[in-house]
Amino acid sequence: MILLDGKKLSQKILDELKQEAAGMAKKLRLAVVVVGKNPVVEKFIGQKRKAALSIGVDFRVYPFEETITTDELRKHLQKIVREKKNTGVVIQLPLPGHVSVQYILNSVIPEKDVDMLSVRSVGALAVGPKSSAMVGPSAAVGGLGRKNIILPPVAGAIKAFFDEYSIEYKNKNIVVVGAGKLVGLPVSLWLLGEKTPFGVVTNQTPDISEFTKNADIIISGAGRPKLITGDMVKKGVIIVDAGTSESEGRISGDADFESVSQKASYITPVPGGIGPVTIAMVFKNLVLLSKSKSHRRRV
Amino acid sequence: MILLDGKKLSQKILDELKQEAAGMAKKLRLAVVVVGKNPVVEKFIGQKRKAALSIGVDFRVYPFEETITTDELRKHLQKIVREKKNTGVVIQLPLPGHVSVQYILNSVIPEKDVDMLSVRSVGALAVGPKSSAMVGPSAAVGGLGRKNIILPPVAGAIKAFFDEYSIEYKNKNIVVVGAGKLVGLPVSLWLLGEKTPFGVVTNQTPDISEFTKNADIIISGAGRPKLITGDMVKKGVIIVDAGTSESEGRISGDADFESVSQKASYITPVPGGIGPVTIAMVFKNLVLLSKSKSHRRRV
Repeated sequence: MILLDGKKLSQKILDELKQEAAGMAKKLRLAVVVVGKNPVVEKFIGQKRKAALSIGVDFRVYPFEETITTDELRKHLQKIVREKKNTGVVIQLPLPGHVSVQYILNSVIPEKDVDMLSVRSVGALAVGPKSSAMVGPSAAVGGLGRKNIILPPVAGAIKAFFDEYSIEYKNKNIVVVGAGKLVGLPVSLWLLGEKTPFGVVTNQTPDISEFTKNADIIISGAGRPKLITGDMVKKGVIIVDAGTSESEGRISGDADFESVSQKASYITPVPGGIGPVTIAMVFKNLVLLSKSKSHRRRV
Repeated sequence: MILLDGKKLSQKILDELKQEAAGMAKKLRLAVVVVGKNPVVEKFIGQKRKAALSIGVDFRVYPFEETITTDELRKHLQKIVREKKNTGVVIQLPLPGHVSVQYILNSVIPEKDVDMLSVRSVGALAVGPKSSAMVGPSAAVGGLGRKNIILPPVAGAIKAFFDEYSIEYKNKNIVVVGAGKLVGLPVSLWLLGEKTPFGVVTNQTPDISEFTKNADIIISGAGRPKLITGDMVKKGVIIVDAGTSESEGRISGDADFESVSQKASYITPVPGGIGPVTIAMVFKNLVLLSKSKSHRRRV
């Protein structure tokens, strides 16, 4: 069993980005919009700040009160997004329950949407890089040739692991667990765009083990600890655990590491797997989007 | 074996739409943009015209020469889309090879995008109806409550068949054949949005029969005649054949009807299956989008 080491891969990506950022005419800055306070969120922001500073990218947090309305937040965001110094904007999730999340996410223009969560970025990903290069405002997406296509950070992280460990995934039985907006959907859109076959199981699937048992690769983002146990997978399976659930301030994945790791050929630990590489991919997108500005085409 | 009768279902939907259209304050008009000449395309346009006239909807074709440039076409489209009398706009595919297809499709604003092929419409579908109701320009999409969600016509047609024939699809093994923009992608986005489990096989799948053999429902949109034969499916399978390929002026589906129909419990014929219902769904979208205008929210 080989552990897919997210800390090591993240460091490697950040080292490359540091060089790239140093060579760019404009200083990059990631703006992070945070609503309310939450110790787990603080921890994530700390990780992003550390990554930013380590590669010479400015980092600015815009904090807002838990009670802010959707309309107020949207107005602030329009200014934050327009601010030239902010070359990328992240809206830290989760947002409070009363906020219209997608409406807020849509205020980030595609050229600064490092998380690729706005309707326009998701649409550009779904219709494919070749065509989205002609979208105008979304031109940044995919304008850099096949190798440097902008992907949602979690999909980019998974692809980076596959590349780093020379894991062939195109002719495999891939099962995506969950169809949520942060993992299942972006991963599915990435695979659809590549015409890579895959299956999606959700909480509507009567017995997901029917599918996981035959899977060569399981990409899980259900957010349910110990959802996937050793008896549900075959010998040699590759486990990409992108599930994150929080319990008493600790982050857990979807896989029961102890039992699953006895059968897996490769497995991402949680923490230290997908998480740090996903953060590195946010910065990779920041660099790629800034680079692609000179390639931009008409609206 | 029960034949899923597209002509009958299409007529039923059009009859309902006729009543709805008659009750609307504004006369609806579908604008169809056609580039070049092609007998099969002419036939499709004729079917749409017939459907429009049968339900009291105006129909206007905007023809352009085969040699038109992308920029010229885009300029004309901006006028056509802005024209108030056009309550819906269809860009008839295929377009000539020199035209940037997605860039042209993106000129249709979501409120008039009955085919749901623009980046913004695809994005709104992918992020889900609940959230897309807050997108502003895309507000029309999904602004009508769960029952009247706007779907890409082919996905709407498949759902209409399932509803009409009381086919339960949510706990089934669904295999989507192909990941193209006209069938595989919109069908996948629809199913992802519903969290309905499914699998996608493509021409990268070494042997698709490994998946089709276990499928309860096969939704095929590969555009390859006789791709799916009787030996590749199990007894009782439901075949939704949305593949269209043209040979000598005739339209073929993906299924080898003769062999597959001997095992299927339900099957859509080609022609006379998905095709006519997809056309009816274009007009359903035209009606739903016009209705939803009063529900529209901020940008």
